Amino acid sequence: MSREKLLLKISGKIVNPDNPEIIARYADTIKKLVDEGKRIAVVVGGGRYSRAYIKCAKALGLNNAQADMIGIEIARVNALLLAYALGDYAYTPIPRSVEDVQRAWSSNKVVVVGGLQPGQSTAAVAAVVAETLGIGKMLYATDVDGVYDKDPKRFSNAKKLSVVSIDELVNFMSQRYEAGGYELLDPIAIQIIRRSCIEVIVFNGFETSNVEKVLRGESIGTKIVPCK
Amino acid sequence: MSREKLLLKISGKIVNPDNPEIIARYADTIKKLVDEGKRIAVVVGGGRYSRAYIKCAKALGLNNAQADMIGIEIARVNALLLAYALGDYAYTPIPRSVEDVQRAWSSNKVVVVGGLQPGQSTAAVAAVVAETLGIGKMLYATDVDGVYDKDPKRFSNAKKLSVVSIDELVNFMSQRYEAGGYELLDPIAIQIIRRSCIEVIVFNGFETSNVEKVLRGESIGTKIVPCK
Amino acid sequence: MSREKLLLKISGKIVNPDNPEIIARYADTIKKLVDEGKRIAVVVGGGRYSRAYIKCAKALGLNNAQADMIGIEIARVNALLLAYALGDYAYTPIPRSVEDVQRAWSSNKVVVVGGLQPGQSTAAVAAVVAETLGIGKMLYATDVDGVYDKDPKRFSNAKKLSVVSIDELVNFMSQRYEAGGYELLDPIAIQIIRRSCIEVIVFNGFETSNVEKVLRGESIGTKIVPCK
Amino acid sequence: MSREKLLLKISGKIVNPDNPEIIARYADTIKKLVDEGKRIAVVVGGGRYSRAYIKCAKALGLNNAQADMIGIEIARVNALLLAYALGDYAYTPIPRSVEDVQRAWSSNKVVVVGGLQPGQSTAAVAAVVAETLGIGKMLYATDVDGVYDKDPKRFSNAKKLSVVSIDELVNFMSQRYEAGGYELLDPIAIQIIRRSCIEVIVFNGFETSNVEKVLRGESIGTKIVPCK
Amino acid sequence: MSREKLLLKISGKIVNPDNPEIIARYADTIKKLVDEGKRIAVVVGGGRYSRAYIKCAKALGLNNAQADMIGIEIARVNALLLAYALGDYAYTPIPRSVEDVQRAWSSNKVVVVGGLQPGQSTAAVAAVVAETLGIGKMLYATDVDGVYDKDPKRFSNAKKLSVVSIDELVNFMSQRYEAGGYELLDPIAIQIIRRSCIEVIVFNGFETSNVEKVLRGESIGTKIVPCK
Amino acid sequence: MSREKLLLKISGKIVNPDNPEIIARYADTIKKLVDEGKRIAVVVGGGRYSRAYIKCAKALGLNNAQADMIGIEIARVNALLLAYALGDYAYTPIPRSVEDVQRAWSSNKVVVVGGLQPGQSTAAVAAVVAETLGIGKMLYATDVDGVYDKDPKRFSNAKKLSVVSIDELVNFMSQRYEAGGYELLDPIAIQIIRRSCIEVIVFNGFETSNVEKVLRGESIGTKIVPCK
Repeated sequence: MSREKLLLKISGKIVNPDNPEIIARYADTIKKLVDEGKRIAVVVGGGRYSRAYIKCAKALGLNNAQADMIGIEIARVNALLLAYALGDYAYTPIPRSVEDVQRAWSSNKVVVVGGLQPGQSTAAVAAVVAETLGIGKMLYATDVDGVYDKDPKRFSNAKKLSVVSIDELVNFMSQRYEAGGYELLDPIAIQIIRRSCIEVIVFNGFETSNVEKVLRGESIGTKIVPCK
Repeated sequence: MSREKLLLKISGKIVNPDNPEIIARYADTIKKLVDEGKRIAVVVGGGRYSRAYIKCAKALGLNNAQADMIGIEIARVNALLLAYALGDYAYTPIPRSVEDVQRAWSSNKVVVVGGLQPGQSTAAVAAVVAETLGIGKMLYATDVDGVYDKDPKRFSNAKKLSVVSIDELVNFMSQRYEAGGYELLDPIAIQIIRRSCIEVIVFNGFETSNVEKVLRGESIGTKIVPCK
Repeated sequence: MSREKLLLKISGKIVNPDNPEIIARYADTIKKLVDEGKRIAVVVGGGRYSRAYIKCAKALGLNNAQADMIGIEIARVNALLLAYALGDYAYTPIPRSVEDVQRAWSSNKVVVVGGLQPGQSTAAVAAVVAETLGIGKMLYATDVDGVYDKDPKRFSNAKKLSVVSIDELVNFMSQRYEAGGYELLDPIAIQIIRRSCIEVIVFNGFETSNVEKVLRGESIGTKIVPCK
Repeated sequence: MSREKLLLKISGKIVNPDNPEIIARYADTIKKLVDEGKRIAVVVGGGRYSRAYIKCAKALGLNNAQADMIGIEIARVNALLLAYALGDYAYTPIPRSVEDVQRAWSSNKVVVVGGLQPGQSTAAVAAVVAETLGIGKMLYATDVDGVYDKDPKRFSNAKKLSVVSIDELVNFMSQRYEAGGYELLDPIAIQIIRRSCIEVIVFNGFETSNVEKVLRGESIGTKIVPCK
Repeated sequence: MSREKLLLKISGKIVNPDNPEIIARYADTIKKLVDEGKRIAVVVGGGRYSRAYIKCAKALGLNNAQADMIGIEIARVNALLLAYALGDYAYTPIPRSVEDVQRAWSSNKVVVVGGLQPGQSTAAVAAVVAETLGIGKMLYATDVDGVYDKDPKRFSNAKKLSVVSIDELVNFMSQRYEAGGYELLDPIAIQIIRRSCIEVIVFNGFETSNVEKVLRGESIGTKIVPCK
Repeated sequence: MSREKLLLKISGKIVNPDNPEIIARYADTIKKLVDEGKRIAVVVGGGRYSRAYIKCAKALGLNNAQADMIGIEIARVNALLLAYALGDYAYTPIPRSVEDVQRAWSSNKVVVVGGLQPGQSTAAVAAVVAETLGIGKMLYATDVDGVYDKDPKRFSNAKKLSVVSIDELVNFMSQRYEAGGYELLDPIAIQIIRRSCIEVIVFNGFETSNVEKVLRGESIGTKIVPCK
């Protein structure tokens, strides 16, 4: 009853129909973790297919919530690809609300989620799901190697950080906003990670073996320390 | 209480995120029909995005039912694009089962459906929805001008038929099967159309004005006569 | 996680309120199979109570989809009888859509289904459920001993086949159609069985011990070979 | 927004598949009442098909709650027959809980219910539905002409009462209990009718014209006065 | 598959937000019982917060069913407190209908319920849930030490009964009704307990250790013998 | 089909069981707006009962998401009080997810919501609901008269602003954060209001006549201008 719990957040740039072999590898990795006794929740993003659909939503003059919902639906199809690849290890259909997530989790299966509500990033969904299910560790698989002290695309001397506190991260991000930076964690995600002290490890998710490396404690990517 | 009812089946080649302006025109056409007092159900297909997702499903080794479900989910996102474009004229969220379709129809709104169950074509879904809701006329918007007596791609003297009986159509199709032909209506669709005597008019759906032309009785496309 | 999976399709002529002792024996048989480690899905038909209700539906002038839905509801009550007889081995309530079937299956319990959608035979439901859940073997319990080379009611020299390919079966059935024959498998069922290579064993289901005989490999009934 | 509301409770002896013509007449009567501006909820019982299924449930050794649930499912199929006969006047699918009843009522359609929970008579369901929807008048269509001062089957001088207070009724019923009497209203129904002061008119429901007679104020059947 | 099953009914006077430490102790007790192999369903009442909300409902002029539903919602929040305290031992969200209860029970988790339908006491809910799930023993945790032969508040010589038959209990209660007595079990609860022969042990639930004492067979509280 | 739409957000300090007369007045006001042709969505908060339950959740050691969910449930009971007070004007039951909100809105009734997901303020819920339903104006009924340039509790010369831009508001709030200030709009609410240009009018909601004053254009409270 007290199995170790993990949340795996995978960018839609990684889990999408262009990458069946990566989805298959994630399925294998997750099955292995379950066989080792772990309980796993997964949150996946939408990727370029989401963007294509959202572009159409905007062209149609739909409002932002509707465009978000359209993007969420595509993330859910990505989630369904992974859930089906997990076979009987995973709960289907894909949960569509926080209550659904709880219902799915009650089955003891791997729960794969693709989005919940307009106005939230995938990172926020991951934080909400982790917090709801009492998961204290988020593996954040994305398309960069970790968090840098400067924007690595602009500064050749940017240095990857192996550990960063959530406060430092917020500082970096607010500087990058002004510099046209990107968002690793949106304000909702940061608030939840901080208040529930959820450890986040950011790493390059195109290399699925990184999941196990992170779990073995290897210094892959960047660990975000959420609290003192 | 006895408003005229129509089912509009639109190919996923037409209603998909590549074609926002066509979706917008369909939304306008449907709103106009509703304002004239008609009740409308719409069934849309998946198109090339469905195929991209299904291709991934196959590459993942998912079974045929799972691949179909993945394709249905994409058709549902297409349906959601159209439903949102219809604003308060349409019921949301997109119904996910025949019971959901009935529930949605009970709201008196336009009901947009994107697929129900593995092993069925969009045409079969359209037939099931029409029959369930007691709709006797299906407007079948597709990427060809109608039904031909021969395969127009192979025979330059192929002739578009303005009227065809369901029996003749089945004959044409069975011949084409052998010749590598395509499927306008699958066996489920044919069975339902025949048993419930649902009139089907096949026409080029890229030209949305054809919907109103068909309803005015203009000789557009091909009328399939389902029963004596 | 890789337990053997079976689909048991039982005719409504067998599982209905006239036959409590047969339902009880099926419950015992299924419990035993589960205790041996197997995962079981069951699809049951409507039988004569369905027909009584459908007859009323027709007399009321309901459309074919509505009459089918009425019949499906009765099949679901038959399913509920069996599910309750299975006690804590079975999932309740009875799933009402393919998504519901997946949700129920995620519980690791026996899932009993009674029908899903208008326009389908129980055999088609069984094929859809088997395919969705990745089940490769269907035990088809019916009121005849197997498949014959001729109609056994008309030809005294009709011979029961122990093995038949799906292609041969389709041939037999199309001949019988003309001769007023019956339908063992409708076109949807055939299509799914073929495309997903689901082995079907047809046997007399009034004798519940046949289930275990079939599973022990005894030559009971007729094996339909779905693919090369 | 303040349309007159009625609850029509019809015995399963009346609305069941043996009586399509009566179902059709009820459908016509209800449509007429709706066209006159009334809002209608209907609760139907199970009748002899329920009893056949419940008998099987008992033979299977199912518990009482399960037997009740089986009977409720049959009542729901009866409800579906009537709802389909009402066409677009009625909400479908049949509500399965009090929350479902509210959801259905929010559609402004006629809501037809067939049972909610084990341990309740159809009369109790009717009382719960009426109270929940704020309906103050219940038309109780059954197989007797009204309430008698003695059991009319045993006493030739039994007299039909045109008006009876709920307290008198409870007295009659408690006497009849001892004498092997029947239950018109179970304790739950009586409690709700009394606390919410719901007027009940009991009449012979095989004669559908009685519904309109009752509504016109003709002295048909027996009026149960629920409060001072 | 044949784990011992218990229903624990806890008064809303006990499980409510004023008593976190008691909720925590119940959670610990229930976890322990599960770890010993038992399956547990819990039904909790509303308590003083329910009454505050119901008082407002009455002041608003809501009908009795609506007031009951408001009270049920508060009991469900109490149920959710306990379910969350049980962590992964419990199913969430809180079931909202008998079908939901079955669905939740299919997960093999502890199921916590807070009310189902207007017009019922918490005891009736407990009886319905126990009967539905085939549970034969109800632990009835309340704010008195057991059943007395007279009202202990009025008679100093009132004697606590260690065993009482359901018939005797009904007699006591009917006398107390006239004397302004209270209701331990309402008529629905009594009917179900009797027909399904559910043993009920009434005890002081503020002392959570009583649960284990009762289960060890210690003579705590009053045992209600439901049948011969 | 193009009825004016409004979102009414009411603080849980106002709509809660302590204030039946205010709930009744809001019900009357909303009915009047509907009779004038407007479509209304309402979002209500939890108030002191939420806080009592959340306090217990914390004492139990529940995580933040669970505590939030507990508080949301209480806000939903507040919402149900108002929905019931609205009678047939309102949709029930209370929607529990964004999809539910859409489903409820499809009924053309007033939709009352009480919270959706952990980690969000009531203001964020209101913004999400408004955006989803395409509502451009939010009436923000709270316990202060509007937005002040300084904290009115600390500075006697604080001045109520009749108009403030969202940017100015964010500035005020960030200053107040440091000074122990409160949150009128959380970051999610601000982001959505800004991106979808939703006009917000903050006013004292204890005076229900303010709703109509605001709608008549009287200078009550503070108008937040969300975009240029």
